[in-house]
Amino acid sequence: MSRFWSSAVHALEPYVAGEQPKIPGLVKLNTNESPYGPSQKVLDAIAAASGERLRLYPDPASTALRDAIARRFGLSMEEVFVGNGSDEVLAFTFAGLLKHDKPLLYPDITYSFYKTYARLFEVKVEEIPLDDGLRVRIGDYDRPCGAIILANPNAPTGIALPLSEIEKLVAAHPDQVVVIDEAYVDFGAESAASLIPRYENLLVVQTFSKSRSLAGLRVGFALGQRPLIEALERMKDSFNSYPVDMLAQAAAKAAIEDEAWFDEACGKIIANREMVTKALETRGFEVLPSSTNFVFARHPAHQGADLQKGLRERAVLVRHFNKPRISDFLRVTIGTTEECNHFLSAIDQII
Amino acid sequence: MSRFWSSAVHALEPYVAGEQPKIPGLVKLNTNESPYGPSQKVLDAIAAASGERLRLYPDPASTALRDAIARRFGLSMEEVFVGNGSDEVLAFTFAGLLKHDKPLLYPDITYSFYKTYARLFEVKVEEIPLDDGLRVRIGDYDRPCGAIILANPNAPTGIALPLSEIEKLVAAHPDQVVVIDEAYVDFGAESAASLIPRYENLLVVQTFSKSRSLAGLRVGFALGQRPLIEALERMKDSFNSYPVDMLAQAAAKAAIEDEAWFDEACGKIIANREMVTKALETRGFEVLPSSTNFVFARHPAHQGADLQKGLRERAVLVRHFNKPRISDFLRVTIGTTEECNHFLSAIDQII
Repeated sequence: MSRFWSSAVHALEPYVAGEQPKIPGLVKLNTNESPYGPSQKVLDAIAAASGERLRLYPDPASTALRDAIARRFGLSMEEVFVGNGSDEVLAFTFAGLLKHDKPLLYPDITYSFYKTYARLFEVKVEEIPLDDGLRVRIGDYDRPCGAIILANPNAPTGIALPLSEIEKLVAAHPDQVVVIDEAYVDFGAESAASLIPRYENLLVVQTFSKSRSLAGLRVGFALGQRPLIEALERMKDSFNSYPVDMLAQAAAKAAIEDEAWFDEACGKIIANREMVTKALETRGFEVLPSSTNFVFARHPAHQGADLQKGLRERAVLVRHFNKPRISDFLRVTIGTTEECNHFLSAIDQII
Repeated sequence: MSRFWSSAVHALEPYVAGEQPKIPGLVKLNTNESPYGPSQKVLDAIAAASGERLRLYPDPASTALRDAIARRFGLSMEEVFVGNGSDEVLAFTFAGLLKHDKPLLYPDITYSFYKTYARLFEVKVEEIPLDDGLRVRIGDYDRPCGAIILANPNAPTGIALPLSEIEKLVAAHPDQVVVIDEAYVDFGAESAASLIPRYENLLVVQTFSKSRSLAGLRVGFALGQRPLIEALERMKDSFNSYPVDMLAQAAAKAAIEDEAWFDEACGKIIANREMVTKALETRGFEVLPSSTNFVFARHPAHQGADLQKGLRERAVLVRHFNKPRISDFLRVTIGTTEECNHFLSAIDQII
């Protein structure tokens, strides 16, 4: 607290990210990073983009990158917005598209940054409870609202809605923006990007951090019809003309173009997820059906906090949320086969 | 305009940056970039930081970089905030420290992004006219206000206030935050960073884009006592936990540590600025006394817009502001000796 602060600062609820400790030998399964380094083509693109040219500002419109993303999704470049990680894209989305007189709807259990953005931009909110199976029930969103945001697959549950359900939601709210945050979609869910030509109220947000192994470089993007993208551009150009740096633009372009690397990396993570899921079920865990690069699981005889502590003592970091309904769950990122086995051995020692 | 936009979007006045055309052979003196590529140590640091590790999130607190900046200024790491370019740092500053019941003061002619931020965050503003010599007169700021922001040296005039004047201003407003935006300070002005231990209301903002030749990588920082820095941290953690990517952190750390490269690059730019100033004066221009990497100059017999157009026809890009009081001036970035001579030859052809 300080008399120098603007009054809004006092009301903020800053997001708390998973910890990023610098302990060597740690099996780090707490922040949903990819266990695999990025494509060699990405590293080559960074090397090629580095050099004397860094003295110049990057392309403020990220033209080449947006063009590559547009081609991947069969959209036009004007239907693509890129930002400094999908967190920045989401921030502009909250400020520019989700603040209305009627409340924004999102699930009571979801990406916790949504609540932080709502506080920051003073967006009125109504949280809609997940059902008893921790699933989003589309019918629950059939109420007066200013806009809707859903993570699909949802986090930290990992559960995805089928595209038909997403379309039902988008079609039921023609006068409200519906944002589908697809940070984890590449691990087994279906993107709503294909609906964009038919729905002017749909915005899809994705990230290079997970399935493209580029968390270190901070690139995210939004897809939508022109008026929605224009709102984000206006926010960006009122905040920071050059949000995505030169190396990040080059790296992300190479990443979105390397489909062979992408298919292989996602395939390996999905295979390991199925392995971990079965292994946990064998050990008595309830594991929610995951379409992501993590599993959300609880054991009937062990509290979540105790399991997290036991794992930490064995140098395995997982995420635990001390919140009603999910306090007995652990969110465990799918690592390499070796890391998954290390995690399972540690679990065996604890239970 | 769209019914999907939040109402705030309609009121925005997005910043218009200098154009970044992709015409080969262009002498680009319009966006105040350095004519010299970054230090080899910076490029080596990028190469060393690139690789498999990019799959991981960067250090959200930019610890090593903040420590290097702190050492350079004789401050503690807790007195340093870093962001995705000084534009992002300024955005958080406007939202977190400059929005109060009484108006924010800044000059009528200054960095035009200030007005954009004020619109975005709904900060009440009072513009204080520069004097007839286009100088900031400290006494003009002796009026009721919520906060003050000054670019020093000012842009686009290039004129710097001496440190004694800055201190007078900071001391005269003990209950208001005074922000000194020092984007160009390394080219001949004196930083106010040395005042920070004595003034709790002083925030100094700098960038790696100009004197460190890293416009392409987007790193800026703020220096101030703990409560001011904490406000910026709270804003950041409500907006984007990881604003500075892994390569940018590594590059900026190497840049701030390479003082020999820095001294040489700034020295060469200052020498060329003096050369260009004299050459323009010989040709009848009035050149404001610059402490930056650009000059702001007008010719008694030629309109600014005409000169800009003539230069553009000769593949030389400079910046012109179609605004009262400065519409006859050109802002010309100091390039390499060759670029400066090319600019002067083009001027000779025009006048």
